[in-house]
Amino acid sequence: MKTIRVELGANSYDIFIGNHLDDQIGQFLSTQKFSKKALLVTDTNVGAIVGDRIEKAIGNAGFDVKVVTVDAGEISKSLAVAENIFTAAIEHKLDRKSMIIALGGGVVGDLTGFVAATFMRGVPFIQIPTSLLAQVDSSVGGKVAVNHALGKNLIGAFYQPRAVFIDLDFLSTLPTREIASGLGEIVKYGVIADADFFCTLESHVDQILALDNLTLEKIIARSCEIKADVVSKDEKEGGLRRILNFGHTIAHAVEEETHYKKYRHGEAVAIGMIGAAHISRELERISDADVERLQRLIDRLKMISRVEGIDVEQTYNALFRDKKTVDGKINWVVMDSIGCVSIVNDVPESVVKSALKKIIA
Amino acid sequence: MKTIRVELGANSYDIFIGNHLDDQIGQFLSTQKFSKKALLVTDTNVGAIVGDRIEKAIGNAGFDVKVVTVDAGEISKSLAVAENIFTAAIEHKLDRKSMIIALGGGVVGDLTGFVAATFMRGVPFIQIPTSLLAQVDSSVGGKVAVNHALGKNLIGAFYQPRAVFIDLDFLSTLPTREIASGLGEIVKYGVIADADFFCTLESHVDQILALDNLTLEKIIARSCEIKADVVSKDEKEGGLRRILNFGHTIAHAVEEETHYKKYRHGEAVAIGMIGAAHISRELERISDADVERLQRLIDRLKMISRVEGIDVEQTYNALFRDKKTVDGKINWVVMDSIGCVSIVNDVPESVVKSALKKIIA
Repeated sequence: MKTIRVELGANSYDIFIGNHLDDQIGQFLSTQKFSKKALLVTDTNVGAIVGDRIEKAIGNAGFDVKVVTVDAGEISKSLAVAENIFTAAIEHKLDRKSMIIALGGGVVGDLTGFVAATFMRGVPFIQIPTSLLAQVDSSVGGKVAVNHALGKNLIGAFYQPRAVFIDLDFLSTLPTREIASGLGEIVKYGVIADADFFCTLESHVDQILALDNLTLEKIIARSCEIKADVVSKDEKEGGLRRILNFGHTIAHAVEEETHYKKYRHGEAVAIGMIGAAHISRELERISDADVERLQRLIDRLKMISRVEGIDVEQTYNALFRDKKTVDGKINWVVMDSIGCVSIVNDVPESVVKSALKKIIA
Repeated sequence: MKTIRVELGANSYDIFIGNHLDDQIGQFLSTQKFSKKALLVTDTNVGAIVGDRIEKAIGNAGFDVKVVTVDAGEISKSLAVAENIFTAAIEHKLDRKSMIIALGGGVVGDLTGFVAATFMRGVPFIQIPTSLLAQVDSSVGGKVAVNHALGKNLIGAFYQPRAVFIDLDFLSTLPTREIASGLGEIVKYGVIADADFFCTLESHVDQILALDNLTLEKIIARSCEIKADVVSKDEKEGGLRRILNFGHTIAHAVEEETHYKKYRHGEAVAIGMIGAAHISRELERISDADVERLQRLIDRLKMISRVEGIDVEQTYNALFRDKKTVDGKINWVVMDSIGCVSIVNDVPESVVKSALKKIIA
């Protein structure tokens, strides 16, 4: 088992990464001064596979845990579903020191985190992310949110968990597309901050695709470490943290233009990273060889990098509706090399559109 | 004009207290790097009286401000109304650096603060409290919330405003009961932290009741100062901050038993303070003379201190449903003297019930 410390002063916490972490969960909980009432939130997919197991692990640690199961899928990330979870928390008589545990992928983590952040102005929050994407992305950083009918993640908070348990056992139950989606974010960490890590990914493609346990533990740990390092330096997204947005500006526009139905988030990120690489190339910050190297790794990891059926002009306009756009200016994360990025907000329209044409079939 | 600094590290802010603060609002806004889009939230009562004036002051400072008017009253402190405000914010195209301003009493402040705390994970929040209670209570401390059908303030956050403008002009428009309600919290500050301030209140009863401007400025400023001092030392209610709860444990139970209809919050606090004084007396921490002195000031300030039509047993049970009750233990704030309180969690049932009998007619 590996442990990654996320340093955030009084909000610091540990991420535990390994196989079958039931005992670790119990051990951790026994050291905390939580009240005995607890709420475990999961979804219909994950709950059916591992809900009983985790409920038992928490119950064995002495907690009176109530399980709330929400419908699987983005539809559950709403204020209405959050309100139902508040109701369950009140009816189960949770108090200010009662923990709320998220067991599931990004939707369950974001939704449950929002509830934990706002129930009684904040109660202890524990994350057990079950998808590769949630393990390497939403388990670090404290971003929690629900969607508004007019836009994703528009209602939320920065709220740190007390601990995160990344159980590699869960990954073998995931469909191939889910793995590819998580790999999008993992590749991103190499591009934005660690050329050596990018090399490691290049040299372990076969082991990664075979879901080799030790390789996964290593790359998940390194991904969390990189994100933790960035977040430690900029908890509330004032500056540095924006580099984590590499590939995401275009990804969000692609997701919006395809109505969040065609691509999973990590897939859209892979497409967006290729787009951002083309922008970086047109700005003469990187070489053709850098673009090709990123493209090759994405291809070998069986991720897609072209999008069909959307329009360049409409996608361009969608970029300006992103939450990170302030006063009409887009902060682009562009590559200076593999392992190093910068933020620029003056990319010409022609450069952006030229890049969009390269990723839109 | 007086300025009180609330010291909270990176979240520090100023409270400006004076008459007709329109120019101060404009001056402050001109020093901030907010986006030009802004949302002003008010209610049907306050909006009708001062909405136009404040909208104009903000507009004159160069902002494109959209006014959202919610129904006056507790009914608006809901997730549903919050969702409507989110919609208005999105439709008016606010971004992460756009401010949301609360113009109104406690309900508008709490609701708007919750929206500001969670919209895009937090946007700048400005408070213009218009009731005496909101001026001395909710304008310091960063507690924002909406109600759940099963309980008050159960969904919220700690979120600090960027500035608070306390305009004494508003007070002359308030009904007498609203003034009395605010005085409940003001007396509380004397009891929990400042015997001299308690004396000042005793010697200025006539000026207070006549709404003398200089007297009000002085006592509002001192109230904010005391609360700011407590909150600075304990932003998230870990310890010291609990002393602000003096009188509130019984107040919340009284409010619940009377279905939040019969008493205003500050009125319930006055009743609760007398109850807490009786508990302190029964525990032999204070003398009969101390209880009488508090009772006399409350009487002279024309606040009520007895409640009719509720049951001692039911009120006792309601105490345990309070949000601050953890694992079934009530943290009582008890008096050691006028100006000094302690927290105890082992007050015998008989002592509590005896005190309740003294305040329940």
